[in-house]
Amino acid sequence: MFNFSSPLNRCFGKHLKIATSKRFFSVFDVAIKNHQVRLAVRPVGLPTLENWKFTEEPIEALESKDDGIIVKVSTISLDPAMRGWMNDAKSYIPPVGIGEVMRAIGIGEVIESNNPKYSKGDRILGTVGVQEYATIQHCKHGVTKLPTEFGTDGQWLNVLGMPGMTGYFGLKEVGLAKEGETIVVSAAAGAVGQTVGQLAKIYGLKVVGIAGGKEKCDWVVDTLGFDSCIDYKDSSMSIGKSIRKHAPDGVDIYFDNVGGDILDSVLTCINKNARIVLCGAISQYNNEVGVVGPKNYLSLLVNRARMEGMVVFDYQKDYPVAVEEMSAYLKDKKMISKEHVVDGGCASFPDALTLLFTGGNFGKLILKM
Amino acid sequence: MFNFSSPLNRCFGKHLKIATSKRFFSVFDVAIKNHQVRLAVRPVGLPTLENWKFTEEPIEALESKDDGIIVKVSTISLDPAMRGWMNDAKSYIPPVGIGEVMRAIGIGEVIESNNPKYSKGDRILGTVGVQEYATIQHCKHGVTKLPTEFGTDGQWLNVLGMPGMTGYFGLKEVGLAKEGETIVVSAAAGAVGQTVGQLAKIYGLKVVGIAGGKEKCDWVVDTLGFDSCIDYKDSSMSIGKSIRKHAPDGVDIYFDNVGGDILDSVLTCINKNARIVLCGAISQYNNEVGVVGPKNYLSLLVNRARMEGMVVFDYQKDYPVAVEEMSAYLKDKKMISKEHVVDGGCASFPDALTLLFTGGNFGKLILKM
Repeated sequence: MFNFSSPLNRCFGKHLKIATSKRFFSVFDVAIKNHQVRLAVRPVGLPTLENWKFTEEPIEALESKDDGIIVKVSTISLDPAMRGWMNDAKSYIPPVGIGEVMRAIGIGEVIESNNPKYSKGDRILGTVGVQEYATIQHCKHGVTKLPTEFGTDGQWLNVLGMPGMTGYFGLKEVGLAKEGETIVVSAAAGAVGQTVGQLAKIYGLKVVGIAGGKEKCDWVVDTLGFDSCIDYKDSSMSIGKSIRKHAPDGVDIYFDNVGGDILDSVLTCINKNARIVLCGAISQYNNEVGVVGPKNYLSLLVNRARMEGMVVFDYQKDYPVAVEEMSAYLKDKKMISKEHVVDGGCASFPDALTLLFTGGNFGKLILKM
Repeated sequence: MFNFSSPLNRCFGKHLKIATSKRFFSVFDVAIKNHQVRLAVRPVGLPTLENWKFTEEPIEALESKDDGIIVKVSTISLDPAMRGWMNDAKSYIPPVGIGEVMRAIGIGEVIESNNPKYSKGDRILGTVGVQEYATIQHCKHGVTKLPTEFGTDGQWLNVLGMPGMTGYFGLKEVGLAKEGETIVVSAAAGAVGQTVGQLAKIYGLKVVGIAGGKEKCDWVVDTLGFDSCIDYKDSSMSIGKSIRKHAPDGVDIYFDNVGGDILDSVLTCINKNARIVLCGAISQYNNEVGVVGPKNYLSLLVNRARMEGMVVFDYQKDYPVAVEEMSAYLKDKKMISKEHVVDGGCASFPDALTLLFTGGNFGKLILKM
């Protein structure tokens, strides 16, 4: 079994400062500029171009003689969680500061190293930020050498990365999935949803997806192998009625990526001792009037059911087990990893991020730098 | 260890039909009339006199030669759950039907028996309904002989009864109480709240109550021994601020009897891996515009916390263990059982029930028949 030398969960920790200092890179050709996307103004509602500041700076130089690396970033992961990081609110990690490079996980190649563990040309996965060159002064936390034998870069940002780990541990450790049960998965064509549903099928559950639009729903059923998929944009039947139709024996697990009306509808369909895995609430992240709470939450009471939050970083010590298991499924074609890749680097970041909140992405959203 | 011959949880089951048949009691003096409170109209909002029908009928005769008993009811338990039973909605038990005697747990004395297990003069605990005489045709479920050695009638409807069992198993099995943790208990002076807080103190937790008014708060601290108690009617400080003041290390367990704004406030103060025990939501039961969901529910996500419903009947096989334990605390004066007794029988029932929803009761509400 391989080991992450620097666990992914620490990628988000306070140990990593990204290119906010003013000591610039000097050993490289000065013609190489680093382009960055920084948080300019905290958004109210959906982020717009005004929330971002585009900067061009020399590459930051390494401070420490024995620890740091400079990474040429090739791809970054765009995640709903980014919206939360933009708010000045207490959460599981500190918010991105005004003027700081926007936090992002990504993959890149080491172009300079003061650290004996990393050599030029090594591919790494870590919190690189939305920029072309990431100067990581302290590698102890926040960086891991990419075990390329387990999957492609895209897979490492999707099924084998944060979304996949979220799906894996959410399903097993919080959802307590058992063969023969029925699970409903929202944002089924998204990064987390696709992992959850495919894994649940492998584990012998009945899987009902919820996604937006016929194309996604058809793909979820025909390609991913879900038992059925409800199009929440189809107003011919309420979500609640659709769930009762597709899950006539009730819902044992609901993997919630969206919150809002869909969560409320599922709450009316849960079985005794059901588990609701609170993974996200993308419908609420840009809500200017505040989050709407689930008005049917008392269904938890009468059904002795549970709604439980999860943050993937808590499971980091077991990531290698999950990666090995899911990598085997990918190689055996028991699972697929669908990525939605956007080109254009920093300039494309604001519009690309918006796709997550409008449902415009189809699969795990990745930006090429 | 004693055994309940007929577990309490079945008191609410479909096995027990209360005096809805028209075969009337004939062996007794025909001058004895049975007075009853029946559900006339389902309430919208707070129940009023119009929701009830008062009937006077002969005592229903026993049908079955070998099983039934007739009970002269002495006291009944008034519980927030009654409001839910009045709604025509799917829940953990069927609603009370229009025209049926209102469901109620109570204590009474056997005055006639066709069942060898029960003799005239035996005191029983069971689902007797809001009436003076309960004819229980089938004793297999819904009735238990009162083990009077463990406590008084009042204690059997409070700490040793449904509210006490709810507190005991909610705290231990759903709250997963651990020594040194901090628990917040709403409706702290109520039936469930008083048990939860006193037990939590015995188990070594820091206990913060929430109750309405200075008198209740003082009693909760001075007599029950809670560490502190927040008066939710005191508008000089928000509930959230008060909780942060009284629980500066955060909340590990919240035992929720009320829902609404208080639940929302506590959600802003929970610790990582906190447990919210959903026991009730008395603030919402009479809400005419529908239940208001907890808008801060995403605090569960960032804190990897859990909100879980409970229904006491699920723990019935372990009631005897809980009764023995709590009976010992009562005898050792480590716990007290405070009851609020209303006189007047059927005629007093509607007003007495309303006390629960206006906070007018102080302790476990009991009606003398």
